[in-house]
Amino acid sequence: MSKKLRMGMVGGGAGSFIGDVHRKAAAIDGMIELVCGAFSSTAEKSIASGLALHLDENRCYGTFEEMIKKEATLPEEIRMDFVAIVTPNHMHFPPAKMALEYGFHVVSDKPVTLTLEEAEILQDIVAKSGKLFALTHNYTGNSMVKQAKAMVAKGELGTIRKIQAQYLQGWLSTSLEKTEQKQAAWRVDPKRSGIGGALGDIGTHAENLIEYITGLKIKEIAADLGRFGEGRVLDDDGNMLIRMENGAKGTMSISQIALGEENNLAIKVYGTKGSLEWYQENPNELITRWLDEPKKIYTPNGNGLHDEALEVSRIPAGHPEGYLEAFATIYKNFATHLNAVNEGKKIKKPDYPTVADGVRGMKFIYAAVESDNNNAAWTKIN
Amino acid sequence: MSKKLRMGMVGGGAGSFIGDVHRKAAAIDGMIELVCGAFSSTAEKSIASGLALHLDENRCYGTFEEMIKKEATLPEEIRMDFVAIVTPNHMHFPPAKMALEYGFHVVSDKPVTLTLEEAEILQDIVAKSGKLFALTHNYTGNSMVKQAKAMVAKGELGTIRKIQAQYLQGWLSTSLEKTEQKQAAWRVDPKRSGIGGALGDIGTHAENLIEYITGLKIKEIAADLGRFGEGRVLDDDGNMLIRMENGAKGTMSISQIALGEENNLAIKVYGTKGSLEWYQENPNELITRWLDEPKKIYTPNGNGLHDEALEVSRIPAGHPEGYLEAFATIYKNFATHLNAVNEGKKIKKPDYPTVADGVRGMKFIYAAVESDNNNAAWTKIN
Amino acid sequence: MSKKLRMGMVGGGAGSFIGDVHRKAAAIDGMIELVCGAFSSTAEKSIASGLALHLDENRCYGTFEEMIKKEATLPEEIRMDFVAIVTPNHMHFPPAKMALEYGFHVVSDKPVTLTLEEAEILQDIVAKSGKLFALTHNYTGNSMVKQAKAMVAKGELGTIRKIQAQYLQGWLSTSLEKTEQKQAAWRVDPKRSGIGGALGDIGTHAENLIEYITGLKIKEIAADLGRFGEGRVLDDDGNMLIRMENGAKGTMSISQIALGEENNLAIKVYGTKGSLEWYQENPNELITRWLDEPKKIYTPNGNGLHDEALEVSRIPAGHPEGYLEAFATIYKNFATHLNAVNEGKKIKKPDYPTVADGVRGMKFIYAAVESDNNNAAWTKIN
Amino acid sequence: MSKKLRMGMVGGGAGSFIGDVHRKAAAIDGMIELVCGAFSSTAEKSIASGLALHLDENRCYGTFEEMIKKEATLPEEIRMDFVAIVTPNHMHFPPAKMALEYGFHVVSDKPVTLTLEEAEILQDIVAKSGKLFALTHNYTGNSMVKQAKAMVAKGELGTIRKIQAQYLQGWLSTSLEKTEQKQAAWRVDPKRSGIGGALGDIGTHAENLIEYITGLKIKEIAADLGRFGEGRVLDDDGNMLIRMENGAKGTMSISQIALGEENNLAIKVYGTKGSLEWYQENPNELITRWLDEPKKIYTPNGNGLHDEALEVSRIPAGHPEGYLEAFATIYKNFATHLNAVNEGKKIKKPDYPTVADGVRGMKFIYAAVESDNNNAAWTKIN
Repeated sequence: MSKKLRMGMVGGGAGSFIGDVHRKAAAIDGMIELVCGAFSSTAEKSIASGLALHLDENRCYGTFEEMIKKEATLPEEIRMDFVAIVTPNHMHFPPAKMALEYGFHVVSDKPVTLTLEEAEILQDIVAKSGKLFALTHNYTGNSMVKQAKAMVAKGELGTIRKIQAQYLQGWLSTSLEKTEQKQAAWRVDPKRSGIGGALGDIGTHAENLIEYITGLKIKEIAADLGRFGEGRVLDDDGNMLIRMENGAKGTMSISQIALGEENNLAIKVYGTKGSLEWYQENPNELITRWLDEPKKIYTPNGNGLHDEALEVSRIPAGHPEGYLEAFATIYKNFATHLNAVNEGKKIKKPDYPTVADGVRGMKFIYAAVESDNNNAAWTKIN
Repeated sequence: MSKKLRMGMVGGGAGSFIGDVHRKAAAIDGMIELVCGAFSSTAEKSIASGLALHLDENRCYGTFEEMIKKEATLPEEIRMDFVAIVTPNHMHFPPAKMALEYGFHVVSDKPVTLTLEEAEILQDIVAKSGKLFALTHNYTGNSMVKQAKAMVAKGELGTIRKIQAQYLQGWLSTSLEKTEQKQAAWRVDPKRSGIGGALGDIGTHAENLIEYITGLKIKEIAADLGRFGEGRVLDDDGNMLIRMENGAKGTMSISQIALGEENNLAIKVYGTKGSLEWYQENPNELITRWLDEPKKIYTPNGNGLHDEALEVSRIPAGHPEGYLEAFATIYKNFATHLNAVNEGKKIKKPDYPTVADGVRGMKFIYAAVESDNNNAAWTKIN
Repeated sequence: MSKKLRMGMVGGGAGSFIGDVHRKAAAIDGMIELVCGAFSSTAEKSIASGLALHLDENRCYGTFEEMIKKEATLPEEIRMDFVAIVTPNHMHFPPAKMALEYGFHVVSDKPVTLTLEEAEILQDIVAKSGKLFALTHNYTGNSMVKQAKAMVAKGELGTIRKIQAQYLQGWLSTSLEKTEQKQAAWRVDPKRSGIGGALGDIGTHAENLIEYITGLKIKEIAADLGRFGEGRVLDDDGNMLIRMENGAKGTMSISQIALGEENNLAIKVYGTKGSLEWYQENPNELITRWLDEPKKIYTPNGNGLHDEALEVSRIPAGHPEGYLEAFATIYKNFATHLNAVNEGKKIKKPDYPTVADGVRGMKFIYAAVESDNNNAAWTKIN
Repeated sequence: MSKKLRMGMVGGGAGSFIGDVHRKAAAIDGMIELVCGAFSSTAEKSIASGLALHLDENRCYGTFEEMIKKEATLPEEIRMDFVAIVTPNHMHFPPAKMALEYGFHVVSDKPVTLTLEEAEILQDIVAKSGKLFALTHNYTGNSMVKQAKAMVAKGELGTIRKIQAQYLQGWLSTSLEKTEQKQAAWRVDPKRSGIGGALGDIGTHAENLIEYITGLKIKEIAADLGRFGEGRVLDDDGNMLIRMENGAKGTMSISQIALGEENNLAIKVYGTKGSLEWYQENPNELITRWLDEPKKIYTPNGNGLHDEALEVSRIPAGHPEGYLEAFATIYKNFATHLNAVNEGKKIKKPDYPTVADGVRGMKFIYAAVESDNNNAAWTKIN
């Protein structure tokens, strides 16, 4: 019987959206418990957050440095097993680096770091550390995304020719960053967000989803970015052409000024034998089309699925799973891997995004910005 | 700061569907931890299940009686606060009764008991005990169901005239109970299910949803039940006319032989000013229609919602919540109430189904069966 | 080469909704031309309507009697071939009877007559006349309805067990009949509508669709009718249980006070091998479900259709056909039959509703009203 | 009372898809009758087609030249009023030119000509002739497209910032042109199609729809075209970035190798106050989103529409209109204009596409091809 894994959190204090998401996602499957955290910028706030989360006060730390050092001194059966990093982008690299160097595994939110340089350094650190590193590209945890990937991998769609991906939000349609809204403020600030705005926040999800489902790399992109919000220096909109390594072509459209859109991540993949279509806002359907057969709609735990999809569902067909469940799948697969490592067992290829996905995402951001600076000239991602 | 509440579970051993659902639902919001259980029919199996759930072996009990007696002797800061009952129907009443009598609060799956008589006795026991009792009519925990109820309550739909409710599944289209499938076997067995088959399993959800959203009681029903599966003595299908206490009329259709349907619970409510429509399989939409305005679609955490709906959402608009989250809302609201009670605080009217809903559900089952026995004659529910 | 058939119209003057529909439906396929009409209650209005339709003034008649008598005297190569009757219900029988007796074929709107007695008389007259009689149950002209019927007929759904049908409108939610609205006024008036309100106007469509698709007769119904509009004597709402001749059960719900509903005719049919679902407002999809396969969606002229469906489509897949096209299919099939008759050719069984469907519809209305008068007691349709 | 207009047709013989569409579209509203045609490449075939359409044999011509010359000699009350051109692209210009020069009005299918040069010459000829010229960009005839245009024009969406348009088909996924399929053969042949393949066939529809709805011109495009079908020299796929004259940005994706797609033309327009979304395959819905209000869905003849949309609907809300009806609206508006001209009346700005739209479409094709030749470099459309 595997033990329950102990998680320490960096970030995610009161008012954080994504910290709460990570905690709920880690809790659902009962494999992980939160034992400590450096939740906020001051010890006082961190303690308040930690107590609200039923933690021992003495494991609510003022800084991630303090947490990592202190926890490293605790007995093995008590100290945290891994660190979950849920801070704004500029605070991903420092705690990740330190945690790994102190021997802790890491789960980090995306994009993996503030800069590409940091990402590549981190990749080395992960490799040297021998520790696990999971990046929460949560949408790859959806059952129907697993089914899509499996169908492509098994050749059911034939050769992929065309891809359309989009990630559309509207919440930055107005100048929300000029209000008290904390989520908006750091996302439009290059110091905290990096060189990409919407690119980093949501574009990397779309990029990751394309490559995850198709198993193909994006070779090059031509990006026309928009900065529609008054005074914004980072992109809040992007229109892109993409070319895949196998010759497939497509478009990618991302936006945080697509007024009224909530969280409309979607992908269509067209092959020579079949095609598929998936919408994150209606995640419990995978629409497929075929040369000689009618449209078929797959559902989680429904008829005709591959094992890769079936393994992900927690509940019977028709009982919708959503955002948190997909997010939880990243944690579950990470925890399963970590338990195996701890117990000296082998598992088949771990199925969660890693630092390599993170580096790939940073290269995507950098290529898109470079292309945009060159009037949407084709720019390689490599 | 409220403490984390301690849950003991009756039922929910290996292979149970609903036990796992209860555990996940209880875990999501971080307010509850599982501390003990009588998961299976033998101590050995119960211990195996408990260890897999990271419990102490000595709090894995062979019977619910043992659990309740033993836990009652533990120090207050250790012993369970409440019992979650996730067994087949015939095993709802005994542990609920005993738990209450030993001073434990109770969360029970539905239908509340095997017989109406038991339900009415239990209602008395709850009243006398002064303990909390939650019944997991989980669909009332959906954000869009809260919005629907609030819209009706505020008079936005005017006077309700017409209702259509359905709960359609197809998993008993074949003789699944003749295979190894444990879920099917007890559901078609009157000794374990009671006098209602589909009626108890899913019909009570539809009945509860109608009364929850409209705030109106079903006055009488005319039920034509089907027993399509070979050899079945309990209903696996039902077609009903309903009349509400205010003069509204409607239909209710339930089935477990509606081939291909997964978990299609849906409701439409038509008033003199507006109407609404909700589908459990696509729970993140509430469709509304109006006399002079176009159709409006509400979404969780989206524009134009009432507080009752906003309070339920855990994540931003466009991030779908599903079955587990709605289920978790029952646990969250129960836990919030229990914390308040423990701390001597007042809260506004608790928002989760109680034993009264359970009695109501049993009366519905009994009325439907009586009506069906009388060739679908109108039968009062009171 | 068949000749273009000549149509004379009874009713359908300025302000008529259904007259215009019939004319457009008859025109689409280029097989029929309007040559004369008795469009309105006065000769003057009738001429005005006829001239606007590019008719010769001397073939615009003041009454249907005049039209039928006059046309009968015209040379065969000029006079009308058939009469299209598009008046309110009470004016269906008289012109139909007379036209047949004068040797003209008839296309009539539904319900076929004002009373069941008239319907049965008309059935005899049709039989004796040897003329063709088409009843415009237009929804049976939809491509996806043809596919549905073919799938059931070929046994692909297995034995039918459960049916849900609904026809929901909201346009009589308010007291529209007290305004100038001509459509509303006659529909709530028993003298012009007959003993059924919504029953005749839309209920017969639902009844016809059930029997057309399943190939099964409704054996008996239990009907709870509503008269929600102030002062209404005819039903504006109906909730029904149905039992089919083969033991299948189901519900039918009709309404003209389902606020906000536009023209929501829908049907679901569940069998032992498969099931299907069709919505008139989104007519270009047929949703099917299967024991072991994912949900399949058929589309007009799309993959996997039976010939019965393919024959109906006028345009390639993805080019939506709607209400008028389905209506036109009734006219096209009637015209094809009439041409064959005129040319002494045989055709396979004509595929359009006839007087027999009309009689069946009247029996349905009468059974529903009788059942409602007996507190929704089971009432046979035979 | 206006007279019925007389139409002569060029092309549209047996086996033609679009000729039949034009005839049905012209027939629906009863304002136009087909009186003559040069349907096929030989007189014999043309007569066969004409007879099947109930025409006089002596008005079935072997060539368009013969038809135009002969009809011009007929008495005014008999001869055709206008020519409808439904041939492959290379045969649009010659008959259009000749018809105009002989004093006939013209309705032409799109793209307007084979080359941009021809289009510009034709524009001059139309201007000099003083005759009417309609181009059948049929999708602009949809009720919901009219509503969309009206909403943008009235400023309800604010400033337009982002556009996504797509026109996806899959029918050329295989090498259909190597079979007997006539539709495919000419479309992949530059001599008959022009320099654009999918660009001309469907891309011009998408381009026209963008400019029609937004009232904005596309300033420049960056086009990455695909030629996926073996041996194809013309594009069968295209991915494009677009920049509008007002600074809005967007993507356009077209394809005839998007396997399984039927006729998926769609557009999304995002503004600073609202946004809208429309799908041709489900044309009876217009989805709109707003800053502070829930999503609203408009339907033809439904609540809250502008007059521009209401004028287009032929039947009540909930009665779906489709492809033919939208096509018919082009003919109806053309006929209304022509009647007014004939009667010396003024009408408000005619609402149908003209030769100017045709020139615009050719410029779009040329810019896309030029951009693609330059590795998707930005290319102006002007």
